[in-house]
Amino acid sequence: MSEHPLFEQLRLRQQELFDLSAIGGLLGWDRSTYLPPGGAPARARQGALMARLHHQRATDPELGRLLDALERELPHFDPDGLEARLLRLARREYDRATRVPESFVAELSAHSSATYAAWAQTRPGGDFGPMIPLLERTLELSRRYAAFFPEFEHPMDVFVDASEEGMTVARVREVFGRLRDGLVPLVQAVTARPEPRTDFLYRHYPQAAQLAFGEAVIRAYGYDFTRGRQDLTHHPFCTRFSIGDVRITTRVREDDLTECLFSTLHESGHAMYEQGVDRSLEGLPLARGTSSGVHESQSRLWENVVGRSAPFWQHYFPALQATFPEQLADVSWEEMYRAVNVVRRSLIRTDADELTYNLHIILRFELEVAMHEGRLEVKDLAAAWHERYTADLGVRAPDDRDGVLQDVHWYSGMIGGAFHSYALGNIMSLQFWEAARGALPDLEGQVGQGEFAALHGWLREKVYRHGKMRSTSELLVAATGQDLNPEPYLNYLRSKYGELYGLTEPVGSGAH
Amino acid sequence: MSEHPLFEQLRLRQQELFDLSAIGGLLGWDRSTYLPPGGAPARARQGALMARLHHQRATDPELGRLLDALERELPHFDPDGLEARLLRLARREYDRATRVPESFVAELSAHSSATYAAWAQTRPGGDFGPMIPLLERTLELSRRYAAFFPEFEHPMDVFVDASEEGMTVARVREVFGRLRDGLVPLVQAVTARPEPRTDFLYRHYPQAAQLAFGEAVIRAYGYDFTRGRQDLTHHPFCTRFSIGDVRITTRVREDDLTECLFSTLHESGHAMYEQGVDRSLEGLPLARGTSSGVHESQSRLWENVVGRSAPFWQHYFPALQATFPEQLADVSWEEMYRAVNVVRRSLIRTDADELTYNLHIILRFELEVAMHEGRLEVKDLAAAWHERYTADLGVRAPDDRDGVLQDVHWYSGMIGGAFHSYALGNIMSLQFWEAARGALPDLEGQVGQGEFAALHGWLREKVYRHGKMRSTSELLVAATGQDLNPEPYLNYLRSKYGELYGLTEPVGSGAH
Repeated sequence: MSEHPLFEQLRLRQQELFDLSAIGGLLGWDRSTYLPPGGAPARARQGALMARLHHQRATDPELGRLLDALERELPHFDPDGLEARLLRLARREYDRATRVPESFVAELSAHSSATYAAWAQTRPGGDFGPMIPLLERTLELSRRYAAFFPEFEHPMDVFVDASEEGMTVARVREVFGRLRDGLVPLVQAVTARPEPRTDFLYRHYPQAAQLAFGEAVIRAYGYDFTRGRQDLTHHPFCTRFSIGDVRITTRVREDDLTECLFSTLHESGHAMYEQGVDRSLEGLPLARGTSSGVHESQSRLWENVVGRSAPFWQHYFPALQATFPEQLADVSWEEMYRAVNVVRRSLIRTDADELTYNLHIILRFELEVAMHEGRLEVKDLAAAWHERYTADLGVRAPDDRDGVLQDVHWYSGMIGGAFHSYALGNIMSLQFWEAARGALPDLEGQVGQGEFAALHGWLREKVYRHGKMRSTSELLVAATGQDLNPEPYLNYLRSKYGELYGLTEPVGSGAH
Repeated sequence: MSEHPLFEQLRLRQQELFDLSAIGGLLGWDRSTYLPPGGAPARARQGALMARLHHQRATDPELGRLLDALERELPHFDPDGLEARLLRLARREYDRATRVPESFVAELSAHSSATYAAWAQTRPGGDFGPMIPLLERTLELSRRYAAFFPEFEHPMDVFVDASEEGMTVARVREVFGRLRDGLVPLVQAVTARPEPRTDFLYRHYPQAAQLAFGEAVIRAYGYDFTRGRQDLTHHPFCTRFSIGDVRITTRVREDDLTECLFSTLHESGHAMYEQGVDRSLEGLPLARGTSSGVHESQSRLWENVVGRSAPFWQHYFPALQATFPEQLADVSWEEMYRAVNVVRRSLIRTDADELTYNLHIILRFELEVAMHEGRLEVKDLAAAWHERYTADLGVRAPDDRDGVLQDVHWYSGMIGGAFHSYALGNIMSLQFWEAARGALPDLEGQVGQGEFAALHGWLREKVYRHGKMRSTSELLVAATGQDLNPEPYLNYLRSKYGELYGLTEPVGSGAH
């Protein structure tokens, strides 16, 4: 890099953007963890200042000229090398930041604030009606936004591409269609069977012991506490200020053993990804997970594929029982394993289990697409929501509160691309897991011994270290031999839940 | 303010500078409290970025033109009003930031880093010799810095004025001379008497209980935990991000009962000052303590004048004894009161007691002045140090480690103005206390009941709320009826320590 003075300029500018964003991140982390209530107004002002400074630098015409100059030299660079990748990413972010006029950003921001306030007031009443005109305007603004990026084919592609570069609505629909076709009958079969006992999950589990147990597990996973820490927040999250400082948060319910543990496992997956990026990328925008979907694949892999597996519980249950001897005196490891994998048809996405969660996502994505394509009007959205829940999950919310008013996403930003990455992450988590299993002999046996070094090392080698040097598709192909494919995930679910619920014949497996 | 559009511009620019500085402060707070070790390199980079952004805005020629324009209108404004005070402060800070060329700042910064590194390496060996050429250069740079501000009379005035606007070397010397003349014989008389027992201070006191006790005291003092918090750091400090968010830190030694408690009391004094600034000043550079000396007067008032007083311990000892019943079973409140006021001739400033502390400060100040006036050469500094310690405190360090190499200050910045505010604060703490005692009937009685609301209210009214709207001198005169005067402090020390150590006749009180 240092050979080319223009690249050195680009590197410094990109590092400054990275740092401005990280500093804004620290303001946010502190707000969620330790900010005393009296500090909130000034913190909002200071957060807005950092966002303004970042925007100024991100849209600096000098940066545009620098990118133009470097692009003229691009053909001389290795297309897979740091220079070319950094330039491509910088261009993408510069265009995203500059193509949208400031007046539009202001209009959208004012509308979002008003819509969010109205949603917060309307939701408890359970009637979507008052939100219709606001959401119609949101849809119109989302379409206007998309029009700033005419190079995309589908009107919602720009939103999908924002979190999953190179992904399209067409591709996601096709994959989600296969996933849904496999899931719906599987959920039907599983929920027709008796539910396992879960009573013991809701006994009293003191906070400090819960936290210590979760931290012991993620230390074994490979989360590096010398380059991170865990604190308490209302909503768990992972945030990174550098490769050497990737923090996670969790929350604890003393009457629910699963809340803290699985939040911790989930966020540690995000964090190990960020901690594992190659040091040579430090301070550059390349030093982060390549897409939201791949990020989610890592959190889900450690939370679900490992953390809700039978070998995991065979190994960890004795330690958990030693931590809570009275609460778990009458429980076996198999009962714990079954309890943390209980499947229930439910209305609330964020409470959903591993199996049904994807159906919550898929139907939201399809409703977004239908709106963008003009096949669904906002005024009919509430009814369409109920219809899809009935068809896919066999439940219907009594009103719109836990129906179309459930998630904040559509009421606090634009419509499009808010949800799909979660399910793509689940799908990819199994592609990576299966590839690791092929490469590492006796991976389940290692999990059953509480040994995660080989798995962590494989993921670091194949996924983490590359940061944004490889696209989602490049990562998948290089690591697993194929691009996005829902079959490994469906097979995993069929096998795991078939066994857990004693299904005597494979469900839906012949459909493809 | 909003009536004049240029003032609105100034207000916004000053608020931005305030916020940039506060954000830098949060980076520093986090570094001292929760930063994982791996995060240090990026944090240093991000802190430097915030400092650079602050410097850019603080020296923006546009700001200079705005100040020029407003100054032309200054005669139309109330000289004690917000506009005039803000303009004066903004001008002062703009001049301080712009008069010194960037090349000088860079030269000083490089020299400071080299000197600090050399000091850290040299100090353990105890020989000042290798530091002489470096410190000679520091003195030369300090003189060059002073030359950028030719309006000051004495070559060290610019440094004194930096922390104590309007204060001069001449004035400080005069006041310190009187203080020293009173202190030296008093210290001699006190240390000739038997030492009280202190053995029980060094028993085992668990951390959590120490922290809780200190926090209960400062909550009673009036520190507002909804607008602040206390965390653990290696060096205790107070930092504010807004009037609504003023945080303190402390440290705990489980084998020393005084460390945590008095740090907490001290920092709470700084913090209540910042929390008590009038809300109308929020986000402006006027929203902070008016000078380092006044700041220190508030920390010392709550730490020493209140926290080491007999009525305080009459009230709080039973609670402390209830917290540590075994450790304090054989101790009376009077013994505790005597133990926390033990006087010892010592070599180390930061470990010094209330009485001898000032002598450590005064001799450093006088050595600084002598160097700036050319009466003392750097090569003779170590000898001069030993001479002064022998004369003032009756102790002599075995080598330079705990002699002239003791404090980091001269080895990490310029020479001049690093120490005097501490002793000025002690002096002023008694001026404020005596004025409060005159205004509030039975103030000692209230302290003896653990009642601090009237004192806190008086300080808020007379000191805190004004922020930098009043200078040190204006504050003192308005609150106490006179400018800086060491007599109340000397009288307090003579009376308190005369009684504690059973001195039969007043020491040195007739000297003035």
